Amino acid sequence: MKNYKIAVIVGSLRKESFNLKTAKALIELAPESLSFEILEIGNLPMFNEDLEGTPPDEWVKFREQIKASDGLLFLTPEYNRSVPGVLKNAIDVGSRPYGQNSWNGKPAAIVSVSIGNISGFGANHHLRQSLVFVNVPTMAQPEAYIGGAGALFDENGKVTSDSTREFLKSFIEAFEKWVQTIAGQ
Amino acid sequence: MKNYKIAVIVGSLRKESFNLKTAKALIELAPESLSFEILEIGNLPMFNEDLEGTPPDEWVKFREQIKASDGLLFLTPEYNRSVPGVLKNAIDVGSRPYGQNSWNGKPAAIVSVSIGNISGFGANHHLRQSLVFVNVPTMAQPEAYIGGAGALFDENGKVTSDSTREFLKSFIEAFEKWVQTIAGQ
Repeated sequence: MKNYKIAVIVGSLRKESFNLKTAKALIELAPESLSFEILEIGNLPMFNEDLEGTPPDEWVKFREQIKASDGLLFLTPEYNRSVPGVLKNAIDVGSRPYGQNSWNGKPAAIVSVSIGNISGFGANHHLRQSLVFVNVPTMAQPEAYIGGAGALFDENGKVTSDSTREFLKSFIEAFEKWVQTIAGQ
Repeated sequence: MKNYKIAVIVGSLRKESFNLKTAKALIELAPESLSFEILEIGNLPMFNEDLEGTPPDEWVKFREQIKASDGLLFLTPEYNRSVPGVLKNAIDVGSRPYGQNSWNGKPAAIVSVSIGNISGFGANHHLRQSLVFVNVPTMAQPEAYIGGAGALFDENGKVTSDSTREFLKSFIEAFEKWVQTIAGQ
């Protein structure tokens, strides 16, 4: 069975981030054909076209990691009804330089995770708009809006709710099929 | 006549940025009652809630600059059908810590500037969605979508088109009235 390398991009930099915990829960529940690497995005200098001649090492490394992946799993909190600046900057860095979009064609899925009821809907769909432009075929269904995240994990970062765990399992299994469909078996 | 301090926030870090040139053109065309300061946003560390206990100096300074302003003028390019990460990060930094949103109540206007035909529409409206959440009353009309920016300035950064100059003048005059209405005369 083919193995797929999935780059995981988490939009929150907090150590105890609910998004990071959700990423780890998904990784634990995932089918064997998927292997995961959580990428560093907090160290990427702000995109500035003037730097393209001598791009920062962090940009170069990040672009190589994206290009080497078979698929993308995005976890995003919602900041001010949109994606965090740090996540949008990662999208911008990966999309450049012009004509060398690292994201191009990679199958993706988005999970928004929030302590509130709206469950990151604003961030989830702003991110989808950007992913259209960078030509990332993003899984439609199931959508994943994880709300009430403050009560979702125990002190060891484990998901406390059976129904949420089952949903996350079905989500990552659907993502496997999506990756197979787009990236080829 | 009352004078209003306008904080100008430019979403592109390029030295020869068309957004920066448009900002300067607007400042030159503005009524006397408005005074402007272009704020630095490229040096703001990525928002990370873990840093709130000892916030970076750049965050503290930026928040003070926003709080000291009477109004906000946003210039945004479009990166991947949304606002640049660097601009979104500035919104995020200014909105925190929880309960101390620096943006609260400041009258604002948005100009999107692009070399293409869509004229930054995606960025313009993604930014509006975030500004709703941070309680920034943003001028509705006239909207400003500046396209074809590559041909808009001469070698000294001056606007070459009379009709664009007139539009920018009417825009910044409408913004003066908007600031007076919201901030009080």
